[in-house]
Amino acid sequence: MDLRLYDLAGAEAERRFSPYCWRTKLALKHKGLPFETIPWRFTEKDAIAFSGQSRVPVLLDGGCVVFDSWTIATYLEDAYPDRPLLFCGKGGRAVTRFVNAWADAILVGAILRLVVTDIFAHLHEKDRAYFRETREKRLGAALEAVGANRETDVLAFRKILEPLRTILAAQPFFGGETPAYADYVVFGCFQWARCISSFPLLLKDDPVWAWRDRLLSAFDGFARNALGYPV
Amino acid sequence: MDLRLYDLAGAEAERRFSPYCWRTKLALKHKGLPFETIPWRFTEKDAIAFSGQSRVPVLLDGGCVVFDSWTIATYLEDAYPDRPLLFCGKGGRAVTRFVNAWADAILVGAILRLVVTDIFAHLHEKDRAYFRETREKRLGAALEAVGANRETDVLAFRKILEPLRTILAAQPFFGGETPAYADYVVFGCFQWARCISSFPLLLKDDPVWAWRDRLLSAFDGFARNALGYPV
Repeated sequence: MDLRLYDLAGAEAERRFSPYCWRTKLALKHKGLPFETIPWRFTEKDAIAFSGQSRVPVLLDGGCVVFDSWTIATYLEDAYPDRPLLFCGKGGRAVTRFVNAWADAILVGAILRLVVTDIFAHLHEKDRAYFRETREKRLGAALEAVGANRETDVLAFRKILEPLRTILAAQPFFGGETPAYADYVVFGCFQWARCISSFPLLLKDDPVWAWRDRLLSAFDGFARNALGYPV
Repeated sequence: MDLRLYDLAGAEAERRFSPYCWRTKLALKHKGLPFETIPWRFTEKDAIAFSGQSRVPVLLDGGCVVFDSWTIATYLEDAYPDRPLLFCGKGGRAVTRFVNAWADAILVGAILRLVVTDIFAHLHEKDRAYFRETREKRLGAALEAVGANRETDVLAFRKILEPLRTILAAQPFFGGETPAYADYVVFGCFQWARCISSFPLLLKDDPVWAWRDRLLSAFDGFARNALGYPV
């Protein structure tokens, strides 16, 4: 077994902050598959050109190249069916795609606005112009302007988490009694922020905080021990 | 087999518009279980007092009383395991709860604001004061004031459907190749509006429209044939 993952890094090689790479790392942990990561910066397009595209995560499994976090998750489930299941059946796989789509469309966009200046501050020097240009185009405003209202924006952000609180009132994880890939999809978004920003997204009495804390502790504290901020 | 469902009705006994009752009716259809419905109005609390609570759906299965649409779905899955599965495994069941929570917290609230005056117009006379009082308290405004901005509100509403479009670009149903309970959860919200309002929530070129159309056709057009509006 020889699994290697290209993993987005900041100025410090150990600061790994991509929400999508976090999904993949936790899926690999869930499967109990040992892997090594290769730090990668936004502008190192040449390093992953062999994959035919320009973003991470990119997973090498022996001679096999897999990219896109969702595709990687389904690949791992199918390639390693005898290890703990990420989806717990075909119904889980189909419906988890909605959680994935919700996290990408709603959660990533909302968190980006709250931590975008912190991301910029932690980037490797060579990534800064690229990040500013692409993100300011996407956001339609200067990074600093987007981040300026975060003290009030975070209140609206906490409201969009309401469906999480409903599910967590009934069960400890999206996956039920134990975590599943749907948990890692959503958790990856919070871990992205935690690795790059000291701005508190969650209040300590929020059930989402407690859920995130359970996942920070999973796999011997794998996510908690990552370079980041204790928020 | 003797399944009976208390089902919210409007002024006309055949106008059945509860999003939660639609979830249950489609779950029963999915399981291939014959059932009859009993029209029920908001203020007929005495009629379902035997269930120990005051809202529909309430399902009677022989001597068994089950209420709350989510509880009914899990009941049907467990009581009729040899019939077509609503969740396709324990992963599907756990994660569908998130779809249920998202629909309840986000979709129901958004659609209510768009069709609330139409609901009021279709209620049985005896329900009107109850509905106005409870909904105006919940919404913090007169029904007519809430509905006044719907031509612009609907544009924001269509944006919150973005995760649906992502999943529907990859698969025809939430359940994958065939519908599952997650589909009925979301579809029930649209069917609620369709049964009570001529206000168009969806544009015809929206993939959500096409998905809804597939579900309107399911079970020999069961939902399409319900009393409502062709929007």
